[in-house]
Amino acid sequence: MYMDRLRYKPLLGRVVAPEEAAALIEDNMTIGMSGFTRAGDAKAVPLAVARRAREHAIHISLMTGASLGHGIDGALAEAGVTVRRLPFQSDKHLREAINSGKVMFIDQHLSETVEMLRAHELGHIDIAIVEAAAITEDGGIVPTSSVGNSASFAILADKVIVELNLAQSRDWEGMHDIYIPTRRPYREPIPILRPQDRIGMPYIPIDPQKIAAVVITEEMDSPATLRPPDPETRAIAGHLLEFFGHEVRHGRLGPRLMPLQAGIGTVANAVLEGLVGSGYHHLSMYTEVIQDSAFDLIDAGQLDVVSCSSVTLSDVMQRRVFDSIGHYREKVLLRPQEISNHPEVIRRLGVIAINTALEADIYGNVNSTHTNGSNMMNGIGGSEDFARNGHLAVFVSTSLTKGDSISKIVPMVTHVDHTEHDVDVLVTDQGLADLRGLAPRERAGLVIEHCAHPIYRDLLRDYFREACRRGGHTPHLLEEAFRWHLRQMQTGSMLPKPHGADALGAPGERSD
Amino acid sequence: MYMDRLRYKPLLGRVVAPEEAAALIEDNMTIGMSGFTRAGDAKAVPLAVARRAREHAIHISLMTGASLGHGIDGALAEAGVTVRRLPFQSDKHLREAINSGKVMFIDQHLSETVEMLRAHELGHIDIAIVEAAAITEDGGIVPTSSVGNSASFAILADKVIVELNLAQSRDWEGMHDIYIPTRRPYREPIPILRPQDRIGMPYIPIDPQKIAAVVITEEMDSPATLRPPDPETRAIAGHLLEFFGHEVRHGRLGPRLMPLQAGIGTVANAVLEGLVGSGYHHLSMYTEVIQDSAFDLIDAGQLDVVSCSSVTLSDVMQRRVFDSIGHYREKVLLRPQEISNHPEVIRRLGVIAINTALEADIYGNVNSTHTNGSNMMNGIGGSEDFARNGHLAVFVSTSLTKGDSISKIVPMVTHVDHTEHDVDVLVTDQGLADLRGLAPRERAGLVIEHCAHPIYRDLLRDYFREACRRGGHTPHLLEEAFRWHLRQMQTGSMLPKPHGADALGAPGERSD
Repeated sequence: MYMDRLRYKPLLGRVVAPEEAAALIEDNMTIGMSGFTRAGDAKAVPLAVARRAREHAIHISLMTGASLGHGIDGALAEAGVTVRRLPFQSDKHLREAINSGKVMFIDQHLSETVEMLRAHELGHIDIAIVEAAAITEDGGIVPTSSVGNSASFAILADKVIVELNLAQSRDWEGMHDIYIPTRRPYREPIPILRPQDRIGMPYIPIDPQKIAAVVITEEMDSPATLRPPDPETRAIAGHLLEFFGHEVRHGRLGPRLMPLQAGIGTVANAVLEGLVGSGYHHLSMYTEVIQDSAFDLIDAGQLDVVSCSSVTLSDVMQRRVFDSIGHYREKVLLRPQEISNHPEVIRRLGVIAINTALEADIYGNVNSTHTNGSNMMNGIGGSEDFARNGHLAVFVSTSLTKGDSISKIVPMVTHVDHTEHDVDVLVTDQGLADLRGLAPRERAGLVIEHCAHPIYRDLLRDYFREACRRGGHTPHLLEEAFRWHLRQMQTGSMLPKPHGADALGAPGERSD
Repeated sequence: MYMDRLRYKPLLGRVVAPEEAAALIEDNMTIGMSGFTRAGDAKAVPLAVARRAREHAIHISLMTGASLGHGIDGALAEAGVTVRRLPFQSDKHLREAINSGKVMFIDQHLSETVEMLRAHELGHIDIAIVEAAAITEDGGIVPTSSVGNSASFAILADKVIVELNLAQSRDWEGMHDIYIPTRRPYREPIPILRPQDRIGMPYIPIDPQKIAAVVITEEMDSPATLRPPDPETRAIAGHLLEFFGHEVRHGRLGPRLMPLQAGIGTVANAVLEGLVGSGYHHLSMYTEVIQDSAFDLIDAGQLDVVSCSSVTLSDVMQRRVFDSIGHYREKVLLRPQEISNHPEVIRRLGVIAINTALEADIYGNVNSTHTNGSNMMNGIGGSEDFARNGHLAVFVSTSLTKGDSISKIVPMVTHVDHTEHDVDVLVTDQGLADLRGLAPRERAGLVIEHCAHPIYRDLLRDYFREACRRGGHTPHLLEEAFRWHLRQMQTGSMLPKPHGADALGAPGERSD
């Protein structure tokens, strides 16, 4: 039963079925929902909205922390409910709707959404739908496995719907640190000096009169689907560990490194798994999402403290830690994503940011969002919050994908999310390029020889040599720069066909 | 005489001629010099190094605050002295050497250079050469019209050469605020809550034993060459003022706006001049360089306080204010560029950042450094320090350049310095596009209709329409994206020749 979780008793009369809560959502509303990389999403009400929309058309602008689980983004997109979406998503059906122009998607730095909301730059939140582990005696909302943007959504919204999730451990209570920056021009420094510093409250403080409905749920977060480390991801982790060792030997990093951030997904998770048993101890993380690897590092006694905004785990790891999450109370704290990703704190702490590149070019520009310049994959997420302001910006990628048909190292990326000014280190299974303090022509040599797959190296060398012949600080051949992408779109592979059968010519061959 | 300016008497014996000081510079040294957008540069010693190099080859890595005056960068490049240069430059001869691959140039965010130096990521400063208005009784160095990176250069260098410039007002003393962040992991918040907050010392504190030579100079800063406002820059200023008024009416900005930053150059200066007499009062600036416009706004009683790192003025304005600079002591303070451009402070204060775009594309990506993707103009400077972390990122540009042969609004920029995620507002003489909270397809419509010049609008509409037909979140035609640039490189104009005489075809015409 939920009586001991719903401790603000005047709300007992507002417990309703998901359908009844969903009826509060009206056409053209802006809805802010909890949920960050599948963790702590509102689960019942949004699906009830999608069901209802099959009978009566309803359109909403939907803001979240980041991506959602339970097929919610897909269901809402397929029902035509979501017409505007921000700041991140990773759903197949929603992605199709975005790329076909049906859904307007705003791909935002995750630290900025509520800052813009507060400044009235993104409209007004009509209703916030927030998952909770409990409602306190004061009517405060205790989040579950993520905080995301829930706190500011609830504070700024006219009405709040709470999904009280009995499947989520009641031990989440006390693990959150809810801090909202003071308003400009009276903003004060964010007083985090170390990742473990608690500066806020353990719940979201709102006027409980705003809570219009409470829905009881009992379903766990959608588990993450992590592929186990494979030879490529192990090689990437190995190169990065070797680099860390080199930096420690040269006095540029201490034996505890600096607070680590790692992006979501298999490659980033594998990189952190590579630290298990590595000899590093007293590590810390200041990051947005933690995955299985963080708990493996904690359990190995190597990771002392983790500050994050979301805990996204595989089903195996969910079973291992979610029921005993209270055991991690001294080591793990969850903050609003505005704070977990805040430029001020990231720069102060000197975070080492490790994020995944979709493709990178020979000069160190990184694309993390678009295939062939046009089609959105997921979004930039928090990667540039960390890469731009951290101490070290590392980008990792396999050197190839889809067999050998796509090289992740290209002459010029088709979309830039992280500029050459922001990328310090590039790592693939082939090796590592340390780009710090290097001019573009110097970077190109390193990226080609250390990061590109051998079967693409000659083609890249040809491009670079010919471009240098023409000159420039960042030598390019504009008529050739996207030739590999065009070839891949036409023939399925970036590799030219043998025997000159390729109408587009080899990358080094001039067409003019 | 200089006795009253050289107040640490043990240094009297180290006063030498520029040539003698220059002899301290050895081959392969890394030199850190004062100077930021022509202001406060070391003037005599670097030119003596260039002269000496004509007889004995000497090669150095040269770091500064930003660009230098007095043809120093050109003289050093032409003498083959500079082989590596960072973080910014704007010299014609050096630019040629960079684009031909003779000088390795690292185009850096201006807030990051000394952070990287302190972390041993950019090598070690052998000698710092710093212009001063005085040396205090303690041996502290009082900078002149810029601080730039001088403080950290002097602190980190093995030896320091001071150029004591008698032409610079002694009233600079007391106007600087020298604050160096504490080392990580013991870094504390930077305690600036308002632009006027003084948090440091009025001079650069170093062990005076490190001062190896003092050179007396008597030459003023090279004046800025500002073109007076013309119809285009007046139109840009007008559109931006109208936007500010709109934001104030909608409660998104207060009547004092937010602290302003404006980039260097004629357009940015004209935009600020547009505020003179505009009815805004109690304005403030938190910026890197101030130009003539800042003093016009102060003298008009509209600008209460200016925090900057450099004062770069036309010769007329130099004569008007440099001798009475002490009168501005309560309103103007100069900080190290690490602090003037610090992400933490910029985000806290909510700076309105106004910077110049070299070109922008229909989706809001901005190129501020490269022509045709390859050739460096000057560098990114501090523009992205402000655009990435400020409250509003505004980019301004004329809609055309070189007559009508180049459109500043293009289908795809050939180099990205400011990504679509960071650009809030784009302004040309044609109009203003408010891109906040919009998806790429929505932005394209606004940029084409409001910012592009009418003679290029149909071509942009054709490109966008055809790209949308193919689909995507950010619809592009990769084979056409740079066609305008290629045409301009071949024919001198981005406009297709009339009557189908252009081999490359019109932008909207597919080639495949």
